[in-house]
Amino acid sequence: MNKKEAKPYGITPWEVSGDLDYEKLIKDFGVAKISGELRGSIGVSNPLIKREIYFAHRDADKWLSDAKKKKRVSILTGRGPSEKMHLGHLVPFLIAKSLQEKFGCDVYIPISDDEKFFVKEGLSYEKSIEYSKDNILDLIALGFRPGKTFIFEDFVYTDIYRYAAQIAKKTTYSTARAIFGLKPENNVGWTFYPAMQAAHILFPQFHKGKHMTLVPIGIDQDPYMRLVRDVAENFGFEKPAAIHAKFIPSLYGEAKMSSSDSGLNVIFLDDDKKTVETKIKKYAFSGGKKSIEEHRRLGGDPDIDISFQYLKIFFEPDDEKLQKIYDDYKSGILLTSELKEILIKRINDFLGEHRRKKELAKKQIGKFLMKN
Amino acid sequence: MNKKEAKPYGITPWEVSGDLDYEKLIKDFGVAKISGELRGSIGVSNPLIKREIYFAHRDADKWLSDAKKKKRVSILTGRGPSEKMHLGHLVPFLIAKSLQEKFGCDVYIPISDDEKFFVKEGLSYEKSIEYSKDNILDLIALGFRPGKTFIFEDFVYTDIYRYAAQIAKKTTYSTARAIFGLKPENNVGWTFYPAMQAAHILFPQFHKGKHMTLVPIGIDQDPYMRLVRDVAENFGFEKPAAIHAKFIPSLYGEAKMSSSDSGLNVIFLDDDKKTVETKIKKYAFSGGKKSIEEHRRLGGDPDIDISFQYLKIFFEPDDEKLQKIYDDYKSGILLTSELKEILIKRINDFLGEHRRKKELAKKQIGKFLMKN
Repeated sequence: MNKKEAKPYGITPWEVSGDLDYEKLIKDFGVAKISGELRGSIGVSNPLIKREIYFAHRDADKWLSDAKKKKRVSILTGRGPSEKMHLGHLVPFLIAKSLQEKFGCDVYIPISDDEKFFVKEGLSYEKSIEYSKDNILDLIALGFRPGKTFIFEDFVYTDIYRYAAQIAKKTTYSTARAIFGLKPENNVGWTFYPAMQAAHILFPQFHKGKHMTLVPIGIDQDPYMRLVRDVAENFGFEKPAAIHAKFIPSLYGEAKMSSSDSGLNVIFLDDDKKTVETKIKKYAFSGGKKSIEEHRRLGGDPDIDISFQYLKIFFEPDDEKLQKIYDDYKSGILLTSELKEILIKRINDFLGEHRRKKELAKKQIGKFLMKN
Repeated sequence: MNKKEAKPYGITPWEVSGDLDYEKLIKDFGVAKISGELRGSIGVSNPLIKREIYFAHRDADKWLSDAKKKKRVSILTGRGPSEKMHLGHLVPFLIAKSLQEKFGCDVYIPISDDEKFFVKEGLSYEKSIEYSKDNILDLIALGFRPGKTFIFEDFVYTDIYRYAAQIAKKTTYSTARAIFGLKPENNVGWTFYPAMQAAHILFPQFHKGKHMTLVPIGIDQDPYMRLVRDVAENFGFEKPAAIHAKFIPSLYGEAKMSSSDSGLNVIFLDDDKKTVETKIKKYAFSGGKKSIEEHRRLGGDPDIDISFQYLKIFFEPDDEKLQKIYDDYKSGILLTSELKEILIKRINDFLGEHRRKKELAKKQIGKFLMKN
């Protein structure tokens, strides 16, 4: 499949450098590119799939084949609760939800409050649990199916330690050090966490026996998958499959959305309407020209415009509508301020609905949260 | 207190070398010798105390002072269940039970099935749990008080992971490596275990708030106490106190009772009468002479005789009776075969009663075992 055909909206500066790196990463990591055929076969309309945010995989074809044969398959994607959730955090959960809807499969969501507690110097035990509770409500609000969705938090569903221990026995410190870049001054919780993470990924099989699990991850997390795929064989399990996402840019246009600058560079799920408006208007990196006159004359560049990118990634599933926005912005018909207004409305519609569902989630939590 | 006065039965070869080393260890570890005054103040008739098997301590005076003021105090001693229990394993539990009887305090017993699983190459997860179940029955059979005795097994009471994690965050790999002699090829469960062990020792204070805990240990385990005493302050807890035991010799006369040679060098708690008789007769190192004639003429040496040592340490609490056995063996009135018969009877009486109590323990286990 030709790249240009696959990407009618062109590529942003990040995607340019990104694409080059991504091709290199595919080779470096030894993962496979998601082919047009595989993409079509997955057959979900989620923009994250059809617009190639998810671009690479390991054994996703095998997972899909089992899913289509109605064999048991599951999806697993976790959350490290070190802060309130922002849009970027949603990426793997949105795809997990789409796949659950399409294939009716179980979704497992480990909440690694222990990881964040170990790794973040200033994060207290109590605060890591508090973030967990909040983040879990955000996840339930996305609309996962009760009875088919298992959220387990390491400091609550502590029985996970039994599985982590079995993996720990087969993971040497030197292996963990190499993959996770451990240093002698890191704490021993941190050194143990690679086993815990592998336990998360194998948990669906510990829970319901041998079957294919698909793990949506960022491409930078692939080394952890290699560890767990090696370990899986020791337990007579299937090697978990993965699909790998590109980075989602921050409002500022940084390659990877990661909150900094007091969170001005990201949209948090609890940002109110006014905050969203301010952040997009003031901070969303623009592909527009310096003056309205120049913009009308020369047109803007949607490929480097964050507002357009967010519509493409998250908020405008309709390909024709997105294409029209792309064309209008590029030709100068659509001004930056108008493009931003479109995004602001979409984000605020989404977040308003999300807040309503998050409130409802408080009563549903018992249907999702695993207990010892 | 003069050492010779304190030890009417003299010193064995192991104790000779031992005593010299023990004096050195007291200095090296910076622990205190248990003074005659402290020994008297503890005031239990258990041979392990009055015959100076427990010879050193950290803050035991402080623990005792709180106990006598009726403040909350507890005792903690654990078991790593890597095999069936033998006599040597009982030492800290016998003293814990004596102290519980005397002071009415809580006793906490962590069962580190995870530790043994991590450290023993060939020990399976299932087998480590099986040994735990068996060992726990042995411990309950010793007669600890229900309601005041808390047995918690790492793979069952997995909530212990919450406490271990909090300690892990404050324990660097390099610190753990120094104290536990960790190597890069050790697994990451092993590297985490120092935090788990510290969690065991601080658990009474996590469970019931700040108070003094006394930990009976072998002197070789003191470095772990130093780690946990440092950590305790971070949680606003009391530094746990310790009393340190000398090594208990094996039947063969090895300095530390540790099963080897298919267990012929130790008495297991499930050895039947015939096995006990055979092991003592064939393998208990003797201080007797080569012939009966020579023995009658020159006398035996109870100070190097394992049968006498076991009577002294475990089975003859009456000082006068023990002194008579000592004198008779030394003068040649008592033959080695006769001394061994005394020990065989005492061991088999104890083990017969133990087996009966262990059978009863099966119904009591719910009163002792902590659940998540």
